[in-house]
Amino acid sequence: MGNSEFESCKAQGFVAVPPAKPFAESLKSSLREVFFPDDPFRGFKNQPLSRKFLMGLQYFVPIFDWAPRYNRQYLKSDIVAGITIASLAVPQGISYANLAKLPPIIGLYSSFIPPLIYAILGSSRDLAIGTIAVGSLLIFSMIGKEVNPIEQMNLYIHLAFTATFFAGIFQASLGFLRLGFIVDLLSHATIVGFMGGAATVVCLQQLRAMFGLEHFTHNTDIISVMKSVSTQFHQWRWESLLLGVCFLSFLLVTKYFSKKKPGLFWISAMAPLVSVILGSLLVYVTHGEQHGVKVIGPLKSGVNRLSIKDLEFGPEHLHVAIRTGIVIGTIAMAEGVAVGRSFATYKNYHIDGNKEMIAFGLMNIVGSCTSCYLTSGPFSRTAVNCSAGGKTAVSNIVMAVAVLITLLFLTPLFYYTPMVVLASIIFSAMLGLVDYEAAIHLWKIDKFDFVICISAYVGVVFGSVETGLEVAVAISLIRVLLYLVRPRTSVLGSIPNSEAYRSMDQYPLAKSVPGVLILQMSCPIYFTNASYLRERISRWIAEEEDKSKSSGESSLQYLILDMSAVGSIDTSGISMLQDVRKQTDRKGIKLVLANPGSEVVKKLGKSKFIEEIGREWIHLSVGHAVAACNFTMLSVKQKNVDVSAGDFATPDIV
Amino acid sequence: MGNSEFESCKAQGFVAVPPAKPFAESLKSSLREVFFPDDPFRGFKNQPLSRKFLMGLQYFVPIFDWAPRYNRQYLKSDIVAGITIASLAVPQGISYANLAKLPPIIGLYSSFIPPLIYAILGSSRDLAIGTIAVGSLLIFSMIGKEVNPIEQMNLYIHLAFTATFFAGIFQASLGFLRLGFIVDLLSHATIVGFMGGAATVVCLQQLRAMFGLEHFTHNTDIISVMKSVSTQFHQWRWESLLLGVCFLSFLLVTKYFSKKKPGLFWISAMAPLVSVILGSLLVYVTHGEQHGVKVIGPLKSGVNRLSIKDLEFGPEHLHVAIRTGIVIGTIAMAEGVAVGRSFATYKNYHIDGNKEMIAFGLMNIVGSCTSCYLTSGPFSRTAVNCSAGGKTAVSNIVMAVAVLITLLFLTPLFYYTPMVVLASIIFSAMLGLVDYEAAIHLWKIDKFDFVICISAYVGVVFGSVETGLEVAVAISLIRVLLYLVRPRTSVLGSIPNSEAYRSMDQYPLAKSVPGVLILQMSCPIYFTNASYLRERISRWIAEEEDKSKSSGESSLQYLILDMSAVGSIDTSGISMLQDVRKQTDRKGIKLVLANPGSEVVKKLGKSKFIEEIGREWIHLSVGHAVAACNFTMLSVKQKNVDVSAGDFATPDIV
Repeated sequence: MGNSEFESCKAQGFVAVPPAKPFAESLKSSLREVFFPDDPFRGFKNQPLSRKFLMGLQYFVPIFDWAPRYNRQYLKSDIVAGITIASLAVPQGISYANLAKLPPIIGLYSSFIPPLIYAILGSSRDLAIGTIAVGSLLIFSMIGKEVNPIEQMNLYIHLAFTATFFAGIFQASLGFLRLGFIVDLLSHATIVGFMGGAATVVCLQQLRAMFGLEHFTHNTDIISVMKSVSTQFHQWRWESLLLGVCFLSFLLVTKYFSKKKPGLFWISAMAPLVSVILGSLLVYVTHGEQHGVKVIGPLKSGVNRLSIKDLEFGPEHLHVAIRTGIVIGTIAMAEGVAVGRSFATYKNYHIDGNKEMIAFGLMNIVGSCTSCYLTSGPFSRTAVNCSAGGKTAVSNIVMAVAVLITLLFLTPLFYYTPMVVLASIIFSAMLGLVDYEAAIHLWKIDKFDFVICISAYVGVVFGSVETGLEVAVAISLIRVLLYLVRPRTSVLGSIPNSEAYRSMDQYPLAKSVPGVLILQMSCPIYFTNASYLRERISRWIAEEEDKSKSSGESSLQYLILDMSAVGSIDTSGISMLQDVRKQTDRKGIKLVLANPGSEVVKKLGKSKFIEEIGREWIHLSVGHAVAACNFTMLSVKQKNVDVSAGDFATPDIV
Repeated sequence: MGNSEFESCKAQGFVAVPPAKPFAESLKSSLREVFFPDDPFRGFKNQPLSRKFLMGLQYFVPIFDWAPRYNRQYLKSDIVAGITIASLAVPQGISYANLAKLPPIIGLYSSFIPPLIYAILGSSRDLAIGTIAVGSLLIFSMIGKEVNPIEQMNLYIHLAFTATFFAGIFQASLGFLRLGFIVDLLSHATIVGFMGGAATVVCLQQLRAMFGLEHFTHNTDIISVMKSVSTQFHQWRWESLLLGVCFLSFLLVTKYFSKKKPGLFWISAMAPLVSVILGSLLVYVTHGEQHGVKVIGPLKSGVNRLSIKDLEFGPEHLHVAIRTGIVIGTIAMAEGVAVGRSFATYKNYHIDGNKEMIAFGLMNIVGSCTSCYLTSGPFSRTAVNCSAGGKTAVSNIVMAVAVLITLLFLTPLFYYTPMVVLASIIFSAMLGLVDYEAAIHLWKIDKFDFVICISAYVGVVFGSVETGLEVAVAISLIRVLLYLVRPRTSVLGSIPNSEAYRSMDQYPLAKSVPGVLILQMSCPIYFTNASYLRERISRWIAEEEDKSKSSGESSLQYLILDMSAVGSIDTSGISMLQDVRKQTDRKGIKLVLANPGSEVVKKLGKSKFIEEIGREWIHLSVGHAVAACNFTMLSVKQKNVDVSAGDFATPDIV
């Protein structure tokens, strides 16, 4: 179609078929849009090769990008922030390792190597790296089902490393294949419900240490745990419970203060370390370990040893390692990317989700070879890092150095640290994750999101962590598919004093056009909704005919489909339109299309549908289409009047 | 919001928040739309109770609806059509039972009871009921994997009945729960590829009878079959092959003639029966059964016996029966509903998919208790029924009577019927299902649909029938989800001589508005695309800023988001909009929304987003929004000119 023809069509309000692109080119552009929506190599164009190489290096290893601009001012802030998060990292590392039923020292190892790797590869300036509670719990609940963490301790530890290895592989390959959008399938509502549920489950696990119980269920659901606690009523240790309640109150009070006065953030950041020191001193002085207060016991000092030979690739446990790896990899990635993104938005810089995934992946692969288990960017530690004034990833390096010093010289000090203090630390960290306010907000704005959130919560708390996740993801996808299975169609009417045609439901003032039914299609017409739309449209027509019959208005002569919102159509959709045309033809109604988009027009052209209904019946806008219908109706009526005055029979337009 | 306020807003082109509906009411209306889109009980309103009861009976048992209007004219047509399809049903029934490795007599049983049930409950006037090739093959390939059809014949037959029973339960419950739209998840492209693949696989299975082979692979994929045929080169029987080629040619030639002259449809309809008679006579005369031509052998006469006690609900085989039942139930339902719908559309009447499913389900449940296996409405038989002039479901009753006569008196005549003739009948019926023209059509119109079609075909032919189906459904769903993960955003420009704003890609004539970036969102904003849209919008802004910098045009001051096509939004989508607003605020760009739909406006109102950006910045159309932006830019500029002439610095609007 030449440009002049195009212009003449345009003047009449007709829609032009856009120029056809070669298949290879359109494939390339859609692949680009799917995998490189942020166009990361935009700046690379028109640069010399050496510059391109440098830019590529800076792109893939961000430390080369920011290190040259690093200055003393930054260093000062980063040292303060690094020491602050280290004081949180040491007790949290030990606690979470305990949650994963791994030796406490592995928790410390995991706060040493991974932060260093991330400092080199990561592009977030705020993320503080460490182990995460939900990941730790998942390792226990998934691997613990197959291998007993106490009886087969070595195998259990090796499987935890192997699962971390696979988690890293999974994360890095998703990032490398630019499939990062898979993380987006965890919606905000899913994450709120899931994190709340996981936090509840983690707190429930702490009841063991709180009550000083010897035996405890291996399940994580609330019913098993409550049964386990209540049936052992006579084994409850009041010493343990007393200590737990005291330290928990202390931690919660400091948290409350820091929340009230954000300047005092360091109080709540330091509180866990203070609790550990106080608790250890107390036990040391009172010989509490001989009175039912369990302590950590001996920790061997020294840095991470290589664990590459510990990875278990034998067929017997491979499936559980891979399955666990994928689940914990997804969760760790989702948390890390979400936290990184929200701080980046807050501080107005950009991070590339796919690149972050590669960084997380490599961090976990290296970690799994150096006696570390799953790490990510936990929210609590990152928030502390940010409030403490951390400027770059150097704060992670400072934290790693502080952990290194702990590993080398300070491990004997943890001998008398009571387990119940660790439990209190986890408890107080988790309570903030049960975000009931967010759930109420969801209920107010979007009931369906609330259902998703609650099912994730219930699934995690009453079933298992995986169940909750699976249920929530399934419901989210059903919600999305439901939109494509039952799209909304609405009747449009003319808005007075305006050229716009809008939904009569939304705008009570909109007036229908006599003899014309205007339907708005509201989503791509795919096989999922083609049959529905076919039936729905014929029902609209039937209802309109009933109405005009009963009210004695002029009978229906035109059906205008507003295609503005139809972004795409497939072959099932096209046959639906063909069926609608046949149906309207049979009833003597003319089918008119308004404003089909470029992809739709192209496909309608290829399938000869445009020729079937006539190019002159495809209009630029609903307004143009209505004008054309009114014009034809008027001229037909006038002709009829000319032929036999008074004969107002419905003219046969087709 | 009062009506007067609404009107005053309207006059200024602002969008009003539609009146809030109570939660229960909106839930009810969405459930109605999901489950009763065709509003089947519309006519029931305002009717007396007795009338309602009668209408309900007529709705659920359609024979009460049409029987009173039945007349002699119809009966004449139906008898002719019924006898014609019976002549097809007898040889096809025997052939397909053979394909399912069930005794041939079961194929005849299945053409007797189910058509009677359907005649009472079904709402299609054209569907001719019988066994289907793909369903038969699936029974063999799925149950045959667990139980050998020759060595454990009785168990195998019982499992086939049990699977049919579960298929019926599955179909009826989907229909009853009004979940019929699940069938729509099999897109046109999937069905073309799947049916073609299944037909190919069925033809491959006929090679056994064609070459007169004793042993044959139990797999259905092309590689196993070809290996099986070629390695047995020395066992090939030329007598069998010769007969097969002759009858196949005969059948194909009659088919060709009937296609050329639609009036001669009865030639191809009768050809199978003629082949059976000729083949049997030939074997009888030449004693071919002693020269390597296998024959059906003795068939016991008599009608269906009750098989309700044969159903196997024991735990050992329950899972295979249920699994097979669900797969064959889905396939049978998809074929039957699709065939019924297309003939209904062709003849301009309406059938309710959910009601059809209940009819199919009951037919298969009753069938499974009376020695029948899976039945549906096969395309070939229905087409013959329609060409032979069948008017109502009475033709099914006539066919059932004819089959009954065969069962009672004519079974001995099939003793000498050669298997190879049955193979030829299946072969010629299947060839028409490999619809390569449809595949070419898909390639021309929609490449993605073509990929779906081909993967279904390849999956079925090289893998197994289930694999092909699963792969195709998965790809179809990914395609649909991809649309929601990477929706298209496009920049709009003003179309000259029109108030419309359209995509600059589609309309090369569209002109951008200086200082204003107009972006069109093209699908519901959900968690699946919220992060993508956030990044894509900031890239659009960055590109626009680069452009205006390099060209020296006025800098970007307004971002208008055209929300016309955003049918729905969830909480992730709302936080995306909030992030976009923060980002634009920081850059001194004002965010403006144009034409948000009622659901979107409601949610934006509840989440206070409307207050955040200011109600006056939400406009009825892009045109209104642009006018408001231009007006503000002009007045700010004039003010600036007033204060200091020549100072054109970007004013801070926020």
